[in-house]
Amino acid sequence: MSAVADLMIGQLHSAVQAAQRSGELLGVIAFATSGALLAVRKNLDIFGMAVLACSTALGGGVIRDLLVGRTPPAAFTDLTYLTAALLVTLVIFFRHPSARLTRGPLEIADAIGLGLFCVTGTVVAYTHGVGAPSAALLGMVTAIGGGVIRDLLGGQVPSVLRPDQDLYAVPALFGAATTAVLLHFGVYQAWTGFLAASLAIAFRLLARRFQWRAPQARYPTG
Amino acid sequence: MSAVADLMIGQLHSAVQAAQRSGELLGVIAFATSGALLAVRKNLDIFGMAVLACSTALGGGVIRDLLVGRTPPAAFTDLTYLTAALLVTLVIFFRHPSARLTRGPLEIADAIGLGLFCVTGTVVAYTHGVGAPSAALLGMVTAIGGGVIRDLLGGQVPSVLRPDQDLYAVPALFGAATTAVLLHFGVYQAWTGFLAASLAIAFRLLARRFQWRAPQARYPTG
Amino acid sequence: MSAVADLMIGQLHSAVQAAQRSGELLGVIAFATSGALLAVRKNLDIFGMAVLACSTALGGGVIRDLLVGRTPPAAFTDLTYLTAALLVTLVIFFRHPSARLTRGPLEIADAIGLGLFCVTGTVVAYTHGVGAPSAALLGMVTAIGGGVIRDLLGGQVPSVLRPDQDLYAVPALFGAATTAVLLHFGVYQAWTGFLAASLAIAFRLLARRFQWRAPQARYPTG
Repeated sequence: MSAVADLMIGQLHSAVQAAQRSGELLGVIAFATSGALLAVRKNLDIFGMAVLACSTALGGGVIRDLLVGRTPPAAFTDLTYLTAALLVTLVIFFRHPSARLTRGPLEIADAIGLGLFCVTGTVVAYTHGVGAPSAALLGMVTAIGGGVIRDLLGGQVPSVLRPDQDLYAVPALFGAATTAVLLHFGVYQAWTGFLAASLAIAFRLLARRFQWRAPQARYPTG
Repeated sequence: MSAVADLMIGQLHSAVQAAQRSGELLGVIAFATSGALLAVRKNLDIFGMAVLACSTALGGGVIRDLLVGRTPPAAFTDLTYLTAALLVTLVIFFRHPSARLTRGPLEIADAIGLGLFCVTGTVVAYTHGVGAPSAALLGMVTAIGGGVIRDLLGGQVPSVLRPDQDLYAVPALFGAATTAVLLHFGVYQAWTGFLAASLAIAFRLLARRFQWRAPQARYPTG
Repeated sequence: MSAVADLMIGQLHSAVQAAQRSGELLGVIAFATSGALLAVRKNLDIFGMAVLACSTALGGGVIRDLLVGRTPPAAFTDLTYLTAALLVTLVIFFRHPSARLTRGPLEIADAIGLGLFCVTGTVVAYTHGVGAPSAALLGMVTAIGGGVIRDLLGGQVPSVLRPDQDLYAVPALFGAATTAVLLHFGVYQAWTGFLAASLAIAFRLLARRFQWRAPQARYPTG
């Protein structure tokens, strides 16, 4: 398992170094934006904004690192991500739409973070020796985790569960599964990874635009 | 400690293999049912149901595995449990009582999950070299954890804290402590384990039926 | 890294043994008090009180231990802390102010726990080989974590985010950063550690008394 992981780390080295870090960084920026915008909507002060932005941006990755046994998690050892999340907070603090107009930008930023993290999360899990199906699962958890933390802290029902919400977990699972297939067949590269992320983001945004919804179990049969 | 753990794993091998896996699987099914029923009550769609069912069914075990340092947690490496939770979601989606009648079945399923997980959680912790009292504590956390995650995600106060609620943590602690005593004296077997689980389930159901409640700190003395 | 950690553990030995354990224990008592008082306010029964007191008192340390890879966390192996939290629950159960007067004592106990845990959390992270800036970050997370768990379980928006709330994360970060500087320059001792904790507590209490608040991002510029 460790040998496989080492091999994979070697094979993926260029892709990971080029795409993985920039993908993670973009995901952090997108989720930090969504956290900071929710904070604006809830009238939090600048420190509350920073806490919510950082929890959202780093939370999914921290959960993933704990689950694969990478301690301390990258978010605490490589402070680039934290710094990026704090810079995003500052920018949103000074330039943001009015509270009631934050919903659109928040959901777009959230979709971008979702798409990027389902890919990078799957890659991190896979390079830590987790099998492809489990890696896809961990990738989905990484992608969803940050948003769930944001919504729990911000006092709203998580997007992933909201009954009036369009497909959310499905795009994340789709992106994670695509990445796992790419990894399994050894064709994961910088551009295929970004393609998978783009598909997941497009899927989520289309689901929002056209209100693709899953059926509810409304009518009892028992 | 590791030697003790190895020895215990050996001694418990038959009991663990027979009872542990089936106990865990039954616990997963029971908690997945409770999560899916809460999702029905909250009018979630089928994917929200799946997320809530899986979080409830696997959450307690994931917390326990993280606490004893077993990474990645069993829920991510052995996909039997996840599959079971998803099958339960499907069944509940097609056959369930009307939303307002879900409370009873939800609480019965929850009691069964609680009783099974306090036993299996204690065994897993103990076989990882944790001392008997700490193993009982971890067993209780395993049993309670899934339900707390379900209630937090579903936007309600956790059962374990609800002021109008009958004894909840106490049956879990009772089952976990009984199991720890059985393990400590080397008399933990498939049937004694199931007995401990049954006692905990009966305790919880009786507490519900007869509304056994603990005193509240209502009247100030200061 | 491990060698550094070993060295640090050696150097800090007297300070850690004298101050660290008593600091942690005092922090546990303070946070258990805040959890038990919130439970009184929410009319929970004695077991709900115990769960909330223990989650608050031990939660931050458990999160920290998981993040630095110390499993099982100290709270599960050294039952002194749990026992202390349970004794606090008993005391608060029998002697507490009326529910509507719990707010002041709750916030004072919370400030004391916050100040003590930002110091002890930073020390634990640092002695586990984490760099000084990351150790400060983990110290802040330890200090804030317990209160966040308490507020989430108790069904209220976490103090650290509440918009009507005075500076909360900043005193914790201040205490953690001070401790990290002390550790980095090798002048961390029992008394300097307690001084850092006292400064953080004083900072938080002054922030409450004089309602020091951070600016909100209320006025849109976009």
